[in-house]
Amino acid sequence: MLLNYLDKCQEHGIQRALHVTNEAINRMCNDLGGFPGVFKIADLGCSSGPNALLGISNIISRVHDMCNENNFEVPQFQVFLNDLFENDFNIIFRSLPTFYAKLKNGEGDHCGPCFVSAVPGSFYSRLFPNKSIHLFLSSYAVHWLSRVPQGIENNKCNIYMAKTSPTNVFEAYRKQFEKDFTKFLRLRSQEIIRGGRIVFTIPGRSISDPTSEDCCIIWELLAKSLVDMVKEGRIPESDIDSFNIPYYTPYEDEVRDVIKKEGSFLIDNLYSFALDWEPYNSDNGKMDVADRPIRGKNTAKLIRAVIEPMMATHFGNSIMDMVFYKFEEHVVHHLSAREGRNFNLVISLTKH
Amino acid sequence: MLLNYLDKCQEHGIQRALHVTNEAINRMCNDLGGFPGVFKIADLGCSSGPNALLGISNIISRVHDMCNENNFEVPQFQVFLNDLFENDFNIIFRSLPTFYAKLKNGEGDHCGPCFVSAVPGSFYSRLFPNKSIHLFLSSYAVHWLSRVPQGIENNKCNIYMAKTSPTNVFEAYRKQFEKDFTKFLRLRSQEIIRGGRIVFTIPGRSISDPTSEDCCIIWELLAKSLVDMVKEGRIPESDIDSFNIPYYTPYEDEVRDVIKKEGSFLIDNLYSFALDWEPYNSDNGKMDVADRPIRGKNTAKLIRAVIEPMMATHFGNSIMDMVFYKFEEHVVHHLSAREGRNFNLVISLTKH
Repeated sequence: MLLNYLDKCQEHGIQRALHVTNEAINRMCNDLGGFPGVFKIADLGCSSGPNALLGISNIISRVHDMCNENNFEVPQFQVFLNDLFENDFNIIFRSLPTFYAKLKNGEGDHCGPCFVSAVPGSFYSRLFPNKSIHLFLSSYAVHWLSRVPQGIENNKCNIYMAKTSPTNVFEAYRKQFEKDFTKFLRLRSQEIIRGGRIVFTIPGRSISDPTSEDCCIIWELLAKSLVDMVKEGRIPESDIDSFNIPYYTPYEDEVRDVIKKEGSFLIDNLYSFALDWEPYNSDNGKMDVADRPIRGKNTAKLIRAVIEPMMATHFGNSIMDMVFYKFEEHVVHHLSAREGRNFNLVISLTKH
Repeated sequence: MLLNYLDKCQEHGIQRALHVTNEAINRMCNDLGGFPGVFKIADLGCSSGPNALLGISNIISRVHDMCNENNFEVPQFQVFLNDLFENDFNIIFRSLPTFYAKLKNGEGDHCGPCFVSAVPGSFYSRLFPNKSIHLFLSSYAVHWLSRVPQGIENNKCNIYMAKTSPTNVFEAYRKQFEKDFTKFLRLRSQEIIRGGRIVFTIPGRSISDPTSEDCCIIWELLAKSLVDMVKEGRIPESDIDSFNIPYYTPYEDEVRDVIKKEGSFLIDNLYSFALDWEPYNSDNGKMDVADRPIRGKNTAKLIRAVIEPMMATHFGNSIMDMVFYKFEEHVVHHLSAREGRNFNLVISLTKH
């Protein structure tokens, strides 16, 4: 149940990024004069929800359309789903017979056979043999850092970059992102063929200021809820000080800079869009006062689905209900005066 | 706990087949004048126990030794583990960090990187793109038929081919094996490169007679236990009549005939060996009267691990303890007069 809002939100993000993926496929097909006999696609950080195969479905559908339009031979698809060793791949595998049946129904008998596999491991390590992938896809994964930045013990009563964070905190987060994203690009550049594409979507921020509301306010509200718990004597303040989220929401120029400096890829497209915190209202920017409580509840559910496992390990399971109840109240209060939207970046790269 | 004996037995089988796999690797390496840059290996029916990665470990180790001996460049390994959609792949994935660490310790830093993935699905369907695998491996899986043979409702009070089975039962089992094994070979011939190898181990029988004791007696003893249950009024006889194991233990000539008729592969080696039912005594053919009860118990555990899921679905969970208690008694009685051994075939093929 908790995951429903997260799934819905991810689905919105994937659909909003779709035209960038389609454009990448078009260009790759034009460059190569068709598709390779076996089209090898990897989805990095696929998770295990109902969206685990959504990005892949979209790609297969687009390739079929292009083959029909241009009289190209439909390729075979070899799909590699990636996530951490602990991800629940069993649940994805059990949905595969239905996925294969839908594929056949949707694309018909001329549908190129599709072979889905799973490759577990961190995308901050090598996952594939040299030059073995044509297209990397990733939705809401590459913003997760390999670790919490070091030397930010002074980020008192915050859990991410915040208006009250000391300067070194912004610097430490930025540096960790640079290091991790550089490594990510270097590893993928070894695994991808020349002319191959990477398309990935991450939450980012709309302005250079690292305390930009569209990336930080949600975590500030969550930190506020934890501070409430300290005030009530339920957790020690030191527990908040020692908790920081290993996550980064870059400004578009930061992304461009790392890609340029690493040097293996050219940027084809960098597209950004805002999404409402509460996915069921994403198509309608307007806020109704009467909707605020339900939107607060839904946003709290969404964020809980994202961050609870990590928080429960640190703060203990027993306080989670209360923390997210307080968080919900802070979200409702915030929505009474401001918008609740986050900012997303879709980046499309070509290996040159 | 139940699985321990099965694991141990499979491990014995894998080790006994090792020299055939090593020979296949030697020959392939000689034919190709070294190893391909990315050596692609698939294990069909890997299961999820501690042996899931054993066959693969042996191969990687052998390839390393050969590269050291001959000054060949060590290849990258792309490993595909296959089993049914319902197999527990999560448990294998969680053991991968340890597997990778051992590989590095064992083979040193010059160890070619190894990328393990899972490809779920039946090996009676296509699993891989055309010409994408160098070496197929399979241990104790290919003897499972795609379905129970049709038209054997008259196999009264038996659950497999037995001395009291009507002739049509032997014929139906043989035909189903021919059909399935032909399909298996045809599918693999599309997926394997020219010159690639398949090495697989299955239980078989030592003589042409389909009621050969080394393949049938264990199931006759199990059927006897079910008949006991009928006599005690615990299950209806019709429940036994409608249960037959989708499994076949071929005689070596039957295997050769299908391979020849299908035509895609040449037989490099067909090696057979007998294994004691009770794996801890496999190295010692002698039976001690005092050991019989414990050997009966262990054999019952082994067979229970193999067949209980299928039997529980048909007969119900509640009678399983009693059936296998009776089975244990029949096994002990059998061991008082005869040997308890099964017969195994290791077949090594080359795609021509």
